[in-house]
Amino acid sequence: MTEPLRLGIAGLGTVGAGVIKIIRQKATLLAERSGRPIVISAVAARNRDKDRGVSLAGYAWEDDAVALAVRDDVDVFVELMGGSDGPAKAATEAALAAGKDVVTANKAMLAHHGQALAQLAEDKGCVLRFEAAVAGGIPVIKALTEGLAGNDIGRVMGVMNGTCNYILTRMESAGLTYDQAFDEADKLGYLEADPNLDVGGIDAGHKLSLLAAIAYGTQVAFDAVELEGIGKVSIDDIRQAADMGYKIKLLGVCRMTGRGLEQRMAPCLVPATSPLGQLDGGTNMVVIEGDQVGQIVMRGAGAGEGPTASAVMGDVLDIARGTRLSTFGQPASSLKPVTPSRVASPAPYYLRMGLIDKPGALAKVATALGDAGISINRMRQYDHTNDAAPVLIVTHKTTRAALDVALAAMANTGVVSGEPVALRIESV
Amino acid sequence: MTEPLRLGIAGLGTVGAGVIKIIRQKATLLAERSGRPIVISAVAARNRDKDRGVSLAGYAWEDDAVALAVRDDVDVFVELMGGSDGPAKAATEAALAAGKDVVTANKAMLAHHGQALAQLAEDKGCVLRFEAAVAGGIPVIKALTEGLAGNDIGRVMGVMNGTCNYILTRMESAGLTYDQAFDEADKLGYLEADPNLDVGGIDAGHKLSLLAAIAYGTQVAFDAVELEGIGKVSIDDIRQAADMGYKIKLLGVCRMTGRGLEQRMAPCLVPATSPLGQLDGGTNMVVIEGDQVGQIVMRGAGAGEGPTASAVMGDVLDIARGTRLSTFGQPASSLKPVTPSRVASPAPYYLRMGLIDKPGALAKVATALGDAGISINRMRQYDHTNDAAPVLIVTHKTTRAALDVALAAMANTGVVSGEPVALRIESV
Repeated sequence: MTEPLRLGIAGLGTVGAGVIKIIRQKATLLAERSGRPIVISAVAARNRDKDRGVSLAGYAWEDDAVALAVRDDVDVFVELMGGSDGPAKAATEAALAAGKDVVTANKAMLAHHGQALAQLAEDKGCVLRFEAAVAGGIPVIKALTEGLAGNDIGRVMGVMNGTCNYILTRMESAGLTYDQAFDEADKLGYLEADPNLDVGGIDAGHKLSLLAAIAYGTQVAFDAVELEGIGKVSIDDIRQAADMGYKIKLLGVCRMTGRGLEQRMAPCLVPATSPLGQLDGGTNMVVIEGDQVGQIVMRGAGAGEGPTASAVMGDVLDIARGTRLSTFGQPASSLKPVTPSRVASPAPYYLRMGLIDKPGALAKVATALGDAGISINRMRQYDHTNDAAPVLIVTHKTTRAALDVALAAMANTGVVSGEPVALRIESV
Repeated sequence: MTEPLRLGIAGLGTVGAGVIKIIRQKATLLAERSGRPIVISAVAARNRDKDRGVSLAGYAWEDDAVALAVRDDVDVFVELMGGSDGPAKAATEAALAAGKDVVTANKAMLAHHGQALAQLAEDKGCVLRFEAAVAGGIPVIKALTEGLAGNDIGRVMGVMNGTCNYILTRMESAGLTYDQAFDEADKLGYLEADPNLDVGGIDAGHKLSLLAAIAYGTQVAFDAVELEGIGKVSIDDIRQAADMGYKIKLLGVCRMTGRGLEQRMAPCLVPATSPLGQLDGGTNMVVIEGDQVGQIVMRGAGAGEGPTASAVMGDVLDIARGTRLSTFGQPASSLKPVTPSRVASPAPYYLRMGLIDKPGALAKVATALGDAGISINRMRQYDHTNDAAPVLIVTHKTTRAALDVALAAMANTGVVSGEPVALRIESV
């Protein structure tokens, strides 16, 4: 056995406690697999006296994460505090500046400062790893960065916020409204302190921006992610999409096109029989398409103590084994600035609208679509439930621009009640 | 850019040609990702004049793979010849003995000689990698060895022979008999030269034995894999399992128990709604259960030029990046000899038999089960189609030993026509 690898862990919430448990309980296994003992030198958190269900005996305590990060007896700084800025960023920077390797679960920090931190790590000859930041326990960063590195990556897709998938699944399976399902998730403790991080798609958008950087060798560009939350998804849409053979998911999609990088985190329809469509509850799924490998689907727990700690330990063990990789799979200095595509790739769309009962009403809607060059794949008109008859349309592939032209024309017909719902259908 | 990594490729079939194409077409991408150019110094194959759809210009030619493996201008020997012994093994040994790293897609060689080859690699300070040997393009060796290394592994399951899954899927979807589906697969070129490697479960059993070695830190023990092919699966079983909510898959399962290591590759029933149950056609799936991470499911193409070449390139790029891992995730010298479990873990079973129409016949069968301590979960008797009435039984969890006692007792009742079918139901 060679020298132990000495960790300093900042942040002792659920994940931090989970990492400590693994290191305490699996010392022999970890040493066998990595070739050296994994030990904890010191920990830091806000409250020293809190009971975390795990012994901290034998670890030095630091009140200040920055002080922890630069300790002489720390080889790897494990950042589990969270938050895009503040102490997490200060301590990560301090650790790298002091020549320490860093393992983090912090998607927000990397989404906002990934390029600068990766560059700092590179300048200092350190590694900065973040498997736990994306899709919890699923080793998707490793798969994309290493296992599939021989591929030009086409599309990367993911359902990466378990809370949103839980809400959408409960709306469908229990017939709850969005508000009811939201309240249920809240009571179960599934929501972040700021729920908009979840239901607004921000958290999942952070993750998508990190996958895109690896997939396309680009600088992390979270600001260029087109974000749309699930707040407007109605039980009607969920039911009627199901009727047409689809499920609604908060789906992240990125792809590099001739027009630039597309990154979108938005409610989408996917075929109910596809792996993404079959994904229920709080589970995560990431789909990677490579020109050589075809489609790889990975599914697992996206959050929670064990899964997230498992991902942290994967990175720690890599470092213990001597694996030295660039943060985003190639030197930070070689990552290209992103040109965001301002135009989404063509796709079929799902439209739902209320049609006022007048002769020729449906014809006017169909004409608005036809005039915009959009052809209709399937259409259903239902019986009146109130003053307007629900109409569902699945279009053939079209651009969002053409669709917007058609929607504007429809608004001028006077036969459409309220604002139509338009959701992209992602072929998977 | 540092020095190029120089490959010698032995075996220029589909996969070898695919690897060469990737290296020729993606030189810039590969160099960006690995930090150094990936080049081919020399190739070897049986027939120099064959058109492989790819240029070999600029590569030295060797008729003899051993001569290729020890060339001074080769850093990594890429073994794509196949076969458990013969030239593949001789050249791999020669490469390792000469201090070369080796990347191979050869599951048969590793299933039979994995321990000796891993030990040789370790003695020589070389790495021996084999992502392409298991589940084609799915980076499952990497996930299990590295990403999930912080877990005690519970169970590993896999559908890892696309040909068998194709045959079973076609039987179900098109109502073909086993022989018809086999012939169809044969015409499509899906079968190995010795079809028993596929339909006998041997190929998939090779893969399972490699996964087990990594999961449990044990020496590869292919000889201890309980093997059963798909040749006895009938269209009746497929239909009647479907009726009860199950699909039949050639499923590999390994788990470490108090009684030793279980490794089984056999037709099993799995719930039709599970990810394994939903896996149709030639696709592969591996399910890994870790005590921390829970269940990770990985799905993708298990064979073919692009997917297999993608896996080979993942290993090559790891070596180019300086990643040095033990073959099975820990030093070969620390891998423990396998104690095979001679007893399968308890499970529910599916039974199908023909019942001769006599008063009390069903009671006799039920009594045989009850006397063996087996309780019945579900039972269906169908109308006579010929001289015997088909009876289906799903038992509660029981041992195979108890079931064998019950089956022997049933045989003595004189009411069972022919030999009952008994298939394990794997909870997934």
